[in-house]
Amino acid sequence: MNYTSIKDIDNLDQWVQQAIKIKKKPLKNKKLGKNKTLVMLFFNPSLRTRLSTQKAALNLGMNVMVMNFGSEGWTLEYEDGAIMNSGSSEHIKEAAAVVSQYCDIIAVRAFAGLQDKEKDNAETVMSGFLKYATVPVVNMEGATGHPLQALADAITIAEYKTKARPKVVLTWAPHPKALPQAVANSFVEMMQLQDAEFVITHPKGYELNPEITKDSHIEYDQDKAFENADFIYAKNWSNYNEYGQITNSDPNWTVTAEKMKLTNNAKFMHCLPVRRNVIVTDEVLDGPNSVVIEQANNRTYSAQLVLQKILKK
Amino acid sequence: MNYTSIKDIDNLDQWVQQAIKIKKKPLKNKKLGKNKTLVMLFFNPSLRTRLSTQKAALNLGMNVMVMNFGSEGWTLEYEDGAIMNSGSSEHIKEAAAVVSQYCDIIAVRAFAGLQDKEKDNAETVMSGFLKYATVPVVNMEGATGHPLQALADAITIAEYKTKARPKVVLTWAPHPKALPQAVANSFVEMMQLQDAEFVITHPKGYELNPEITKDSHIEYDQDKAFENADFIYAKNWSNYNEYGQITNSDPNWTVTAEKMKLTNNAKFMHCLPVRRNVIVTDEVLDGPNSVVIEQANNRTYSAQLVLQKILKK
Amino acid sequence: MNYTSIKDIDNLDQWVQQAIKIKKKPLKNKKLGKNKTLVMLFFNPSLRTRLSTQKAALNLGMNVMVMNFGSEGWTLEYEDGAIMNSGSSEHIKEAAAVVSQYCDIIAVRAFAGLQDKEKDNAETVMSGFLKYATVPVVNMEGATGHPLQALADAITIAEYKTKARPKVVLTWAPHPKALPQAVANSFVEMMQLQDAEFVITHPKGYELNPEITKDSHIEYDQDKAFENADFIYAKNWSNYNEYGQITNSDPNWTVTAEKMKLTNNAKFMHCLPVRRNVIVTDEVLDGPNSVVIEQANNRTYSAQLVLQKILKK
Repeated sequence: MNYTSIKDIDNLDQWVQQAIKIKKKPLKNKKLGKNKTLVMLFFNPSLRTRLSTQKAALNLGMNVMVMNFGSEGWTLEYEDGAIMNSGSSEHIKEAAAVVSQYCDIIAVRAFAGLQDKEKDNAETVMSGFLKYATVPVVNMEGATGHPLQALADAITIAEYKTKARPKVVLTWAPHPKALPQAVANSFVEMMQLQDAEFVITHPKGYELNPEITKDSHIEYDQDKAFENADFIYAKNWSNYNEYGQITNSDPNWTVTAEKMKLTNNAKFMHCLPVRRNVIVTDEVLDGPNSVVIEQANNRTYSAQLVLQKILKK
Repeated sequence: MNYTSIKDIDNLDQWVQQAIKIKKKPLKNKKLGKNKTLVMLFFNPSLRTRLSTQKAALNLGMNVMVMNFGSEGWTLEYEDGAIMNSGSSEHIKEAAAVVSQYCDIIAVRAFAGLQDKEKDNAETVMSGFLKYATVPVVNMEGATGHPLQALADAITIAEYKTKARPKVVLTWAPHPKALPQAVANSFVEMMQLQDAEFVITHPKGYELNPEITKDSHIEYDQDKAFENADFIYAKNWSNYNEYGQITNSDPNWTVTAEKMKLTNNAKFMHCLPVRRNVIVTDEVLDGPNSVVIEQANNRTYSAQLVLQKILKK
Repeated sequence: MNYTSIKDIDNLDQWVQQAIKIKKKPLKNKKLGKNKTLVMLFFNPSLRTRLSTQKAALNLGMNVMVMNFGSEGWTLEYEDGAIMNSGSSEHIKEAAAVVSQYCDIIAVRAFAGLQDKEKDNAETVMSGFLKYATVPVVNMEGATGHPLQALADAITIAEYKTKARPKVVLTWAPHPKALPQAVANSFVEMMQLQDAEFVITHPKGYELNPEITKDSHIEYDQDKAFENADFIYAKNWSNYNEYGQITNSDPNWTVTAEKMKLTNNAKFMHCLPVRRNVIVTDEVLDGPNSVVIEQANNRTYSAQLVLQKILKK
């Protein structure tokens, strides 16, 4: 069993309930991971994912080996048949097969480069590990998805919702740096598995990959989208059509207290790190309806559920 | 309970005796830290602190997660109300609150930048963690203090002193690079809690922050200061008045065997790393009265005492 | 007991049999390392060594502290009597002595710089740790040797050989970057302890240090060397005479399927990382006779044997 995409969740409601159970007694399965080892490979920076996934593994009694692949290891080649006489020192074929022998689960973080849409969509790194690793692979944010985050988001919504079918709004917000679509993508895919009124709002032209959004409701008027919302999930992403570009930085898309008044006393969510007063104002983020810290807390239980499921297989 | 300053020591003599007890049986409290996690966040390089604090936590049975914040995480913002549309990706408010959820104690190393006296004196990073973390914070060297080092120094003095009230001299020595005042500051504050004849000696103009030295005896004549000393503690710091500048590199301040002859067969101390033949000559450092290696050894027990006290609360 | 050279192996056959036994029951000595700590110091990148040595220590129940010395610690000085008023912050004398107090075994990786033959041959870093550490030292690849790799190679040959006295060929192969001779050196020294027909093949001028090759058979005709071989071990090294230079990049030395036909159905070995289609073609590396992945797997048991022997002393 791998966990590299929301598609790996067979029953979201059940998973969320199981995660909430883990959260209540995080050390209950302390023996499950005895003598099992998680290797965490980072091709990009990480704070929450780094610490919460490690913590989850420790809660299960696992050993953890953390490696920053870029600075501590070798540059990898991903192309089949490559003549490796320039930059790359090692092919993913060997790297993934070898690392598999030193551990029981491999977790990988490898962001989108945002330079080459096709390459990012191919999830070169994650797919390489999936193909050549001989142990289960966990996605700690790939080029196109961040399923551990989306699972934590689902837990958070389950904890805070006050009605069976809440209105959940994913709103784009401006950001000074070009960011991947990964978090938004997995959130959309996760919401498609939920009983909810789900709305995506963003400026025209900022459509996510239509193969991911499918028939999810897109509303270009942010104010209209916010009406009666129970959850506002803010997130920036760079343009998917003009790939990796920032074509809009309109501050009117920043989530403000005034805009939150349009909602049904909505909870405010964000995956963090968040740019204060750019994505969202201090007033909202520091307000009583902000659940971003608890949402980050749920990262531990999201990861622990996934590791636990893999260990039990 | 936090440990971010010498002021957090309620009874120095008692602490030192407890640390010496720990040193004799370092594994006695191996169960105290079971299922507890220490997160160590480094904003700067570290050898002794990195390894001894980890070792201390392991002696207590704790889990440890180590993170080099600069290269592995996100650039932090510390200012309230900042519009985060440039370099910083995450505010200390979120970072400290989030990390707190993944561990039981946060230890932080964040050196003085030596560019902005006011900012360094405000201990921006350490204060940020103290303010927003929801678990205890331990200082692994901040901008203005290094209390784990000073506690190890106190242990070392207790172990080697041959009289109830030894003469202890903190001497400035030259150094090619501008260094923070942190180690000297905490040593001074720690000595102010000791029954000792304490003398600080340095070139005129190299006064430490007077709010720290208070009425400690300052002697500008190094030879005179060394007379009858039982302990010579050498340390460079950059100019505090002409903040962060090197205004003196007089080799006459180097601690030599000849100067040590002025003392009462004094033990030589330094926090390490030490520049040989700049701070102190090989002859002194390699001589029988040098206790720098044992002093470094005491870093483990200093850290272990602090972690143990926090865990017991 | 240290393990910094093949010379530290007192009985290769016995060691290999012990390692194979460990491989069958890797957790049998889980209690041996209880409350013992391994410090791994990296002055260079590492994938296999980093993870397999850690894994070996975990299999023995040890604690592990990993440190990238270059980026996380201080620049070290190795020269006796140095006046340290420029780049280096700490002398190996203090560093090695201090680290020894925080652990039970120190493992060190420090590649050849390939700039200064004499300095590389002196093994400045490794020798420094050997001289000043007060706990056992393990070589995780030094300037002139990689004995953990060679021990893994010996295990691999033992596992795959089909006759008492196999023909083993170490063949040079081209590489775009200047590489150290360390792996080749230790392999040669290890083979000299084996009952085997051992042949080294490389272009004229690419002779390894004659103090290491001694009377090992050197054959400049690669085809002739391959005849009837049972094992082909490919490895690039830069020129030892024109020290650290690349004076040959002849693609005819690449190991191909055609060349492998000259052998006695030989197994193909390489220490990894390997440049595909430069050192060896995909066809050979992906073929049924390639044992490079199992060879990498044996790194765990090679390291575990060494750690186990040290712990038992």
